[in-house]
Amino acid sequence: MATGEFSRYLKEGERIDDLERNNLRIIQNPDRFCFGMDAVLLTGFVRGLDGRTVVDLCSGNGIIPILLSAKTKAKSLTGLEILEENVDMAMRSISLNGIGDRVSVIRGDVVKASETFGRSCIDAITCNPPYMAAGRGITCPTDARNIARHEILCTLDDVIRESSLMLKHDGRLFMVHRPSRLAEIIVTMNQYDIEPKRIKFVHPYVDKKPNMVLIEGVKYGGRELVVEEPVIVFEKEGVYTRMITEVYGY
Amino acid sequence: MATGEFSRYLKEGERIDDLERNNLRIIQNPDRFCFGMDAVLLTGFVRGLDGRTVVDLCSGNGIIPILLSAKTKAKSLTGLEILEENVDMAMRSISLNGIGDRVSVIRGDVVKASETFGRSCIDAITCNPPYMAAGRGITCPTDARNIARHEILCTLDDVIRESSLMLKHDGRLFMVHRPSRLAEIIVTMNQYDIEPKRIKFVHPYVDKKPNMVLIEGVKYGGRELVVEEPVIVFEKEGVYTRMITEVYGY
Repeated sequence: MATGEFSRYLKEGERIDDLERNNLRIIQNPDRFCFGMDAVLLTGFVRGLDGRTVVDLCSGNGIIPILLSAKTKAKSLTGLEILEENVDMAMRSISLNGIGDRVSVIRGDVVKASETFGRSCIDAITCNPPYMAAGRGITCPTDARNIARHEILCTLDDVIRESSLMLKHDGRLFMVHRPSRLAEIIVTMNQYDIEPKRIKFVHPYVDKKPNMVLIEGVKYGGRELVVEEPVIVFEKEGVYTRMITEVYGY
Repeated sequence: MATGEFSRYLKEGERIDDLERNNLRIIQNPDRFCFGMDAVLLTGFVRGLDGRTVVDLCSGNGIIPILLSAKTKAKSLTGLEILEENVDMAMRSISLNGIGDRVSVIRGDVVKASETFGRSCIDAITCNPPYMAAGRGITCPTDARNIARHEILCTLDDVIRESSLMLKHDGRLFMVHRPSRLAEIIVTMNQYDIEPKRIKFVHPYVDKKPNMVLIEGVKYGGRELVVEEPVIVFEKEGVYTRMITEVYGY
């Protein structure tokens, strides 16, 4: 957290975190939302992005396109985010990292993403969407943390429908979500001509249920799904597995 | 393999295997098909069968209803099998085990199973169907081993459609299959009003891809899927994990 030299980029309540990758840093505001392991694991799950046009939906503070700028040779990485304050924070992170030639985060609504980006023109889409299904009692629907966690401003259907519209033939959608919604994800992908091709579960411990699922779908892809070897996060309490420290860079 | 005392039950090429559970034995013919770990794991995955009417589709030599007679208090367990020779073998196993009061295997076609059993009248269905999709080059489509492995006489769609027709509201379908077909299973269940509620992957080793998936669907069930802790088969080469030896009775 070498905030000093970058303090001119910061607003009230914000901090700078070191991403421990290519000297990348990110501005976060703990009162709004901080990125989690899910976003990092998603950036380790993607493939085939080199030279590609990539869009990140529900981009928040831009963690996914920022990390992907270091992990891939994507031609362009554009985040779409609905909250003005998040877009502002993401653009300051992009600026302080000096990666504005390839990375940007723009303001816009996922529900109309295909109007913003156009149809059948994107190579790959990443998304770490709100996990909680719409309609479960939210006390404060304008709170940024609730918007990030609950389907207040966009649903799973919105994300998959708009992704399908934007993706080229054979374009890829990479998503991280909760295993409890996997059936719904697969059925919705099928409805919008995205074939699930690769699934990876993330288990906190080897003998525990997975608490995240990573999924890759291909627009108009053929039927054949690979369920990969799982990611196990902890060896024992407080100790990451080798897989996490080496492969995922924690 | 205490074949001696039961030799009067055996035909040419057959043997008797000890199921190591309640002294149960099963007649098998290695030239036709022998049951595998998938059938045994499925009988460990089922739940809620006590007092219930259970049908096993693609029953083969009856391994699943025979094992379930020991593992559950199901009211009745009826296998449906298309090959006369398999039905004959299964009925001799049932006879030598003396469990004909609760267990039977009848001859019939899965494609018309709901005509055989009736609609909306079955509590639970189990199925270890052929894994390989129809239309992949089969050299001998009448060979019993090919019929057990390839969708020659019934497809995934047949199994799920007929199960849905036969199941009561809230009735359960328990299936074992290959992970490569999971997306198709989920989409087909959705099409026939069976909601996937529980999934368990079986990995040969902890760091390898799963090679089987166990899935429970509920007729008209609500949306909420649980992906359970995985089954890991081997600790190291030739050594089963404790999970397999203790929980699954290998």
